[in-house]
Amino acid sequence: MATNNAAPAKLAVLIFPGFEPLDVFGPVEIFQTLSTKQLLTLSWISASTLPALDPVSSLIPDDVTLSGKKHTVAVTVVPTHTLAAPPDDIDVLLVPGGLGVWSRGTEPAVDYLRATFPKLKYVLSVCNGAELLARARVLDGRRATTNKALWTRVTTTHAAGGIRWEKMPRWVADGNVWTSGGVSAGTDMALGWVAHVWDEELARKIANVVEYEWRNDPNFDVFAYVW
Amino acid sequence: MATNNAAPAKLAVLIFPGFEPLDVFGPVEIFQTLSTKQLLTLSWISASTLPALDPVSSLIPDDVTLSGKKHTVAVTVVPTHTLAAPPDDIDVLLVPGGLGVWSRGTEPAVDYLRATFPKLKYVLSVCNGAELLARARVLDGRRATTNKALWTRVTTTHAAGGIRWEKMPRWVADGNVWTSGGVSAGTDMALGWVAHVWDEELARKIANVVEYEWRNDPNFDVFAYVW
Repeated sequence: MATNNAAPAKLAVLIFPGFEPLDVFGPVEIFQTLSTKQLLTLSWISASTLPALDPVSSLIPDDVTLSGKKHTVAVTVVPTHTLAAPPDDIDVLLVPGGLGVWSRGTEPAVDYLRATFPKLKYVLSVCNGAELLARARVLDGRRATTNKALWTRVTTTHAAGGIRWEKMPRWVADGNVWTSGGVSAGTDMALGWVAHVWDEELARKIANVVEYEWRNDPNFDVFAYVW
Repeated sequence: MATNNAAPAKLAVLIFPGFEPLDVFGPVEIFQTLSTKQLLTLSWISASTLPALDPVSSLIPDDVTLSGKKHTVAVTVVPTHTLAAPPDDIDVLLVPGGLGVWSRGTEPAVDYLRATFPKLKYVLSVCNGAELLARARVLDGRRATTNKALWTRVTTTHAAGGIRWEKMPRWVADGNVWTSGGVSAGTDMALGWVAHVWDEELARKIANVVEYEWRNDPNFDVFAYVW
């Protein structure tokens, strides 16, 4: 396994009410396993209007209206930081999706992304977390992907800025901006990111430890056909 | 989609310090999506020596000794119940693995499993969560599987009770006792369980919504060869 001394070490993940669990925990499982091999920290930044460091639930906020039934099963996670007092000098930010993205409550997260992106080594979005990047103008003029199940809604809502939305990829890396398809695609992207920053052997080792059949071709996503 | 009026509705998941995140959150992602279609609740039972309802971390407890480095990246989850005051009349219990299983702190969880199993419709373990079921004698005389990366250690430690450990399956259903391979295999099992309780069409719909390429053959796990 190669050691990359310039590798990113300070990771953070943005969480907000109505985040999609696997958008977060697929990549976090990869990061957790990576941290047995590489020096890493992970901060959990609460992007919510809750009091500081109050736990954040995956339940969808009331102001998001859906045609279908909202889920009743959920997870509640403890943040380590808030947008008001975020961690210093993070290298990498993971931005999950979820129907909570559509809440008015995510506006401060968009402001944070706009201000923080220039200082990041990498930003990684999963699913419609790409909508938060689009609103922060991070995707302007870039190639990007998002979840396939909500493809038309997301890409027509965020058609400004010359974003080059690509439906076929499982994930897209345009410079230091990585975007993945829906939910499970984030795990494949996280492993692809490990292969990019360190090497393919390390990514494969991690996939084997978590007994995950890594879809390691970024350019093909069967869900582009399903949806 | 069929409606199954006798279907299990009250789910719970056991969490303890050093649980493996994806063991929990893969199946929970499936349950969360299922709860948009079916009436479901999910309780989070803290099996820890922490004060009641204190958050539970995936960091490995100090009394677990490993040859390798412990991970530094982790998630902290808020429980809804404790072993001392568990939810009433649950139908289904999810038992994750993780290296925290090897902590002395899991003994009360084993006692709880032994007492609660006879009242459950289903118990589902992921990875070496099967060790907790074995210690509770739930697997005595049954077919079962566990993670492949720790196969020899787990199956030789738990050789008593005539447990018929099977390495090749991705997951095993023996009556109402479901056991899966390591980490990611739990997601495949959870979808298989949805197909069993409701129907294959519903499981497939959920897999498509979370854009997950479901390995839907319980009898084959490529990680039986990898490890």
